[in-house]
Amino acid sequence: MYKAPVEEIAFTLKHVAGMAEALAAGTFGELGEDLVDAILVEAGRFASEEVAPLGEVGDRQGSRLVDGAVRTPEGWRELYRNWIAGGWNGLTAPEAFGGQNLPHMLHVAAMEMWNSGSMAFALGPTLTMGAVEAVEKHGTDALKSAFLPKMVSGEWMGTMNLTEPHAGSDLGALKTRAERRGDGTYRIFGQKIFITWGEHDFTDNIVHLVLARLPDAPPGTKGISLFLVPKFLVNDDGSLGARNDVFCHSLEHKLGIHGSPTCTMIYGDGKFGEEKGAIGYLVGEENRGLACMFTMMNNARLAVGMQGIAIAEAATQKAIAYAKERTQGRAPGWSGEGMSPIIEHPDIARTLLTMKALTQGARAIAYACAHAVDMAHACVGEDARHWQERSSLLTPIAKSFATDAGVDVASMGIQVHGGMGFIEETGAARYLRDARIAPIYEGTNGIQAIDLVTRKLPLSDGAHVRGFIAELKRIAAAVAASNREGFGDTAARLDAAIADLAEATDWLIATLGGGRLADALAGATAYQRLFGLALTGAYLAKGGLAEAGDGREDRRIALCRFAAENLLAETAALKDRVVNGALSLAAARAVLD
Amino acid sequence: MYKAPVEEIAFTLKHVAGMAEALAAGTFGELGEDLVDAILVEAGRFASEEVAPLGEVGDRQGSRLVDGAVRTPEGWRELYRNWIAGGWNGLTAPEAFGGQNLPHMLHVAAMEMWNSGSMAFALGPTLTMGAVEAVEKHGTDALKSAFLPKMVSGEWMGTMNLTEPHAGSDLGALKTRAERRGDGTYRIFGQKIFITWGEHDFTDNIVHLVLARLPDAPPGTKGISLFLVPKFLVNDDGSLGARNDVFCHSLEHKLGIHGSPTCTMIYGDGKFGEEKGAIGYLVGEENRGLACMFTMMNNARLAVGMQGIAIAEAATQKAIAYAKERTQGRAPGWSGEGMSPIIEHPDIARTLLTMKALTQGARAIAYACAHAVDMAHACVGEDARHWQERSSLLTPIAKSFATDAGVDVASMGIQVHGGMGFIEETGAARYLRDARIAPIYEGTNGIQAIDLVTRKLPLSDGAHVRGFIAELKRIAAAVAASNREGFGDTAARLDAAIADLAEATDWLIATLGGGRLADALAGATAYQRLFGLALTGAYLAKGGLAEAGDGREDRRIALCRFAAENLLAETAALKDRVVNGALSLAAARAVLD
Repeated sequence: MYKAPVEEIAFTLKHVAGMAEALAAGTFGELGEDLVDAILVEAGRFASEEVAPLGEVGDRQGSRLVDGAVRTPEGWRELYRNWIAGGWNGLTAPEAFGGQNLPHMLHVAAMEMWNSGSMAFALGPTLTMGAVEAVEKHGTDALKSAFLPKMVSGEWMGTMNLTEPHAGSDLGALKTRAERRGDGTYRIFGQKIFITWGEHDFTDNIVHLVLARLPDAPPGTKGISLFLVPKFLVNDDGSLGARNDVFCHSLEHKLGIHGSPTCTMIYGDGKFGEEKGAIGYLVGEENRGLACMFTMMNNARLAVGMQGIAIAEAATQKAIAYAKERTQGRAPGWSGEGMSPIIEHPDIARTLLTMKALTQGARAIAYACAHAVDMAHACVGEDARHWQERSSLLTPIAKSFATDAGVDVASMGIQVHGGMGFIEETGAARYLRDARIAPIYEGTNGIQAIDLVTRKLPLSDGAHVRGFIAELKRIAAAVAASNREGFGDTAARLDAAIADLAEATDWLIATLGGGRLADALAGATAYQRLFGLALTGAYLAKGGLAEAGDGREDRRIALCRFAAENLLAETAALKDRVVNGALSLAAARAVLD
Repeated sequence: MYKAPVEEIAFTLKHVAGMAEALAAGTFGELGEDLVDAILVEAGRFASEEVAPLGEVGDRQGSRLVDGAVRTPEGWRELYRNWIAGGWNGLTAPEAFGGQNLPHMLHVAAMEMWNSGSMAFALGPTLTMGAVEAVEKHGTDALKSAFLPKMVSGEWMGTMNLTEPHAGSDLGALKTRAERRGDGTYRIFGQKIFITWGEHDFTDNIVHLVLARLPDAPPGTKGISLFLVPKFLVNDDGSLGARNDVFCHSLEHKLGIHGSPTCTMIYGDGKFGEEKGAIGYLVGEENRGLACMFTMMNNARLAVGMQGIAIAEAATQKAIAYAKERTQGRAPGWSGEGMSPIIEHPDIARTLLTMKALTQGARAIAYACAHAVDMAHACVGEDARHWQERSSLLTPIAKSFATDAGVDVASMGIQVHGGMGFIEETGAARYLRDARIAPIYEGTNGIQAIDLVTRKLPLSDGAHVRGFIAELKRIAAAVAASNREGFGDTAARLDAAIADLAEATDWLIATLGGGRLADALAGATAYQRLFGLALTGAYLAKGGLAEAGDGREDRRIALCRFAAENLLAETAALKDRVVNGALSLAAARAVLD
């Protein structure tokens, strides 16, 4: 059973991702290390003791649609009540609406642990927090006071309604209609698919944020507006009013995250209310809905990255436990009686260490991204811009590298379990099934790569990414200067990986500058992975270098060395694919016809 | 819907894997190209039109245990009847028992297609064929005449009973007991798990091959005997007699291949028969059961490799079809109206080409392995030994590379489908769920790597593998000499990949020779993949070079170039891991404690 790795998480936050310096500098106000530790311990306890035990039942029973109502798995309603009673829903929300205004770094760390317990469960609150953010940033005061307090407390949950059958990655194609009622409110008509936690029995009301198009809107993405559409209208005194004209038509039958209801939502079908059309309230300006969505998109992408890390951590723990217990054959050098635990076989040990290195690398990248979000929030002027760019740059890497790691590590976890891994009751297979959605939703990892190459590399005319690479080089230099034997060949290998990153970066910036977009995009995914691997090497090294005084430095250094000498060599192949792969890709295109 | 790629399969068999030369040389007797083509077309038709349409229902319904009987999915009994009516079950079986004695190459090609249609369905007959092989090679004449004709025709199916709860990879640990009855027959007592198609409604009788231990047997693998245990005893006139004391206790709830019943079988519980104990007939000699199993192990491993290729092919077809139909965004260079088909996006095209290259590479390796099996069978003396060694060397590579490709390609297929890929009704997820068992059963891919490094590299003191590498170098030289522009940088890159393979091979042979087994095993999996990638490059090149006269050479050359310039660079990292990875692995071992 999953046990939250609170110490490792705290160490990574503080000594790898930059929280220690921020705390020392007073960046987070009066927040001190004691409170950070206390929150992590309690979030970890909740994840290990309350969420994780209900993960399997959620997978097995799933959420079901019965007579128009969604029934969540046994025990999940109580779990949700306990979760909001713990104040977890409002961790980062503004104090004005009942939140605790804590740093995003703490939030992603806690999210990681809840997602390890049950990704399907933790996904619901993640959506609510995104909705809170959008309303808080773009809603009118009236809208905020009517909805935010209960969304912050978790008494009501929120959803995001973007996708339609023909509009997934390309939101410009969406067709849901909004009509002005003349009193400042709107009526919404249309069908939305893949709406996560679109209907359920956790809360009395559900607050849908819905992208729709006004009759006179320009075509494409510039004609999309954002509306808040509650399941039940809210009276002036805050009590629930009439049922709004929106309902859940069906649930998807999915590969994983069975506990999370994925709904087709129908707006304005006339099923509820006297007049057809779901009543909606504009969030932000008309036709500027996509800008409102983008506000929260980065954080949502990072949140999905946390799911990948969460699954990777849980799968790794499970595989290590199994490999210590299961005996089979005799490993070379095994001197014990009878069969050796399979962890003694070099191939199993290698697999487990790879799982650990990918998990820890992805975690460090994601926490560093959250640190940048917090710094951008706390700083002003040039500093704010610097950290804004850093978080923008890191977001697609964190999302893609972590979610790929989630899938890969979960798959390795099954392999370590042998035949037992294929049996559902073992639980290893669930991790792969759950993890598989994360590289897809909130922008496929291919779209993250396009974003990274075409929008993030050009930040500050390429100066930001180059400055970041220079920082990474200093980490490699510090490893060399440390003279710690345990690092082995880390310094040279990390240096080489960063040089590959630098070369691929320069090539992409030049290629984009030369207007050769297709050539740049041909290697975008390889580049994204190259960046993630180089960062994994650098951050593992930073962890190894940190004087944590917790006596675990040698183990951190050993894992760093393992990654440097076993995983980083891949960067050369990835760089090669970026720089040399486009021509043969174009030449082979006809093979697909 | 899957359409058997009969042309590509025929081309690969003939011009890449060596069938054309063998046919020309009369190696397969009177078998000619016309008959080969006719068999492939008909096997492909059966796979596309009869098996594939029943794949989804098999997954959805699964096989169920009802009152002790296993009910297979709707339509599957009829499908099986049609399949054996087509004579497919006895394709390679000896003519003396009603088989057609056709080359193994044809068999694996046909198996690939049936597995593409439904891996869960095709798995049953695969086990039967293995059982036929074991009985034919090691059974007494009486046993053969009593059982083989009906097993060859498919009237009865066969199973393999190896695994027990504490004996999976390590068969030496198994505990099932066999007692002599004094009349030359035995009674069997024990529990076997993970028995594929151990019970079902396809056939009246089921012939179990069971590994068990005699009371006076030496411990470990040298004390294991093989027994034939029919579900129903067979009277002297061939009619079915009493029910034997064996039954299916339960079915596993698995990640995939739901249509295939995975049974826990109980022997000798006293449920059937007057006297406790399932009656069994010795196959081969007492305590030599493992040798009998090894006879068929290689072919069974190759058969599992075919499953990986089968899934990869089906997943690739599905993804390409979806990517041509689904529109989203505007790809660079897209001049059509509105959104472009997603296949126009470079990242999607790259993914699809990678899927195609891995599928075709794995197919070529597997067919080359089957060719070696056929040649070993057809030749005598030194030639027979050469081909025997070749098939031994290729088997672990074919099994592991193809089954890894199955998982990876199926996962890429989901990704191409975006959100739809996560919805079960789409069908892309099923491929991943089905594929995930193949790297595990018939010896995990980690065990294949141990086999490759410790048993196959030393064949003929390393001369065999070195001779094979020299053959591959000649392919690279032929590419260079061809002067065909379409190959781009293929010759140099293939040469480099083969040099990596040669260096890693030399290092492993030297390391094994120096007695450093743990160091050699640390890189065994990386080496196995390196070998598979180098072979993929070489065989794609061989296909490109072949004067097929079918006008598709340019496409084959383009795919080969894509693989050479995009996938082969990974061999340097893999070689590095083999040669340099062991030290850091050993140093990091404590991280797992």
